[in-house]
Amino acid sequence: MTFSVFIPEPPKRTSPPPPVLYFLSGLTCTDQNAKEKAAVFEHAAKAHIAIVWPDTSARGVEIAGQDDSYDFGSGAGFYLDATTEAYSKHYNMETYITEELPDVVSQLFRVDTARAGITGHSMGGHGALSLHFKHPGMYKSVSAFAPISNPTQCNWGIKAFTGYLGSVEAGKAHDATELVATYAGPQVPILVDQGAADAWVTAEHDQLRAKHFTTACAKAKYPLNFRMQPGYGHDYYFVQTFVADHVQFHARNLGAAM
Amino acid sequence: MTFSVFIPEPPKRTSPPPPVLYFLSGLTCTDQNAKEKAAVFEHAAKAHIAIVWPDTSARGVEIAGQDDSYDFGSGAGFYLDATTEAYSKHYNMETYITEELPDVVSQLFRVDTARAGITGHSMGGHGALSLHFKHPGMYKSVSAFAPISNPTQCNWGIKAFTGYLGSVEAGKAHDATELVATYAGPQVPILVDQGAADAWVTAEHDQLRAKHFTTACAKAKYPLNFRMQPGYGHDYYFVQTFVADHVQFHARNLGAAM
Repeated sequence: MTFSVFIPEPPKRTSPPPPVLYFLSGLTCTDQNAKEKAAVFEHAAKAHIAIVWPDTSARGVEIAGQDDSYDFGSGAGFYLDATTEAYSKHYNMETYITEELPDVVSQLFRVDTARAGITGHSMGGHGALSLHFKHPGMYKSVSAFAPISNPTQCNWGIKAFTGYLGSVEAGKAHDATELVATYAGPQVPILVDQGAADAWVTAEHDQLRAKHFTTACAKAKYPLNFRMQPGYGHDYYFVQTFVADHVQFHARNLGAAM
Repeated sequence: MTFSVFIPEPPKRTSPPPPVLYFLSGLTCTDQNAKEKAAVFEHAAKAHIAIVWPDTSARGVEIAGQDDSYDFGSGAGFYLDATTEAYSKHYNMETYITEELPDVVSQLFRVDTARAGITGHSMGGHGALSLHFKHPGMYKSVSAFAPISNPTQCNWGIKAFTGYLGSVEAGKAHDATELVATYAGPQVPILVDQGAADAWVTAEHDQLRAKHFTTACAKAKYPLNFRMQPGYGHDYYFVQTFVADHVQFHARNLGAAM
């Protein structure tokens, strides 16, 4: 598995190792897209926070149908461990992101993986939210850009859960809107930005279901800072515009040496 | 011809139209690369300066050999008007950048094309420098990232001038290091950043020839701010790191409403 890492220069030689922000990307991406297009380096350098960009699916394996569509298989792992026969051997993105990758990163780099935040864009936003709810306390800070917020209620999620888990019903255990209702772990702060002109929200079929998630959070009394951003779409220009806010949010929550 | 434009929000409704910075890209690029990867929006918005990203060659034409290599033909127009039979009809990037594009931009957008700056990366840096020297006073502010500074003395330039102009000798009229020696126009400020770990400089065959240009400027008493940046390569991470300096440099020189 290929991943990218940004390590900030420490404020002082004796500074403790920086906290880590995992940045999960959306459908079709590799570890390169957010790194190249989110314009996050300057802000991460100033906030003294390390960033890790993972890939979005298993790679280098041959599974029938894996490369047939942009929203399933390669580049579309949905940050879960697959259970269907075709995918269960290699598509274990949840274990990769929450166990294997932090191990590798902490062995290779001087970073404090115990102080970890998570963010993501679109499918990566689904990953950030759902991994937080499934691993209470693992992430001390959570944010998302235009997340797929209720995947059992949208075509992308229905396709993914059917293919990776065998049913949409099984997807409920990986769906932020379902998970927040019964979540009992620490209420770490969540920041979500959503473009109001995002074509995936304004389209006839809403793939993101932001409203379902905000309603579920309100009902569960989970503190969510949800910001609808007028005029913005689903693209990296939208991410780029608000990424400084997210980096500063995570740096504050993780106690980075600002 | 496809191009991209960024228009800043004016400080006040009554603010005069913003000045324009032309951002010329390098080999293999379209109008998209620098827009997506240079992380320039935030800085241009703050400095109230418009940016125009042109494409790097003629497109949509069929010329034998045009698509055979990354450093000649498509994506490699070298910002000159070709004179060879195969290329003279469509490859007229100098006329496009200095005449046609400003006309189109000023007709479509509320910008002040009379207050124009120019910058570029690699082949685009060659474009920025050479177009300034060939059109004295057209640009009130000039900068470059890792420019091809003496193209008659490097393989990229030799190939381009031979193919587009019929000889390397003819390329001297488009070579910044040659041009500065006889330039007699207004000495508008030039800022150049160069990564010291740039593989095109450190390679056995130096394609950029920064030293030739700095020496020629010193000899011609042309004021050049040349900054060798330790550790940086030829990539957009290098551009991204110093792009705020360049935007502020142009905004100051062009009298943007900061």
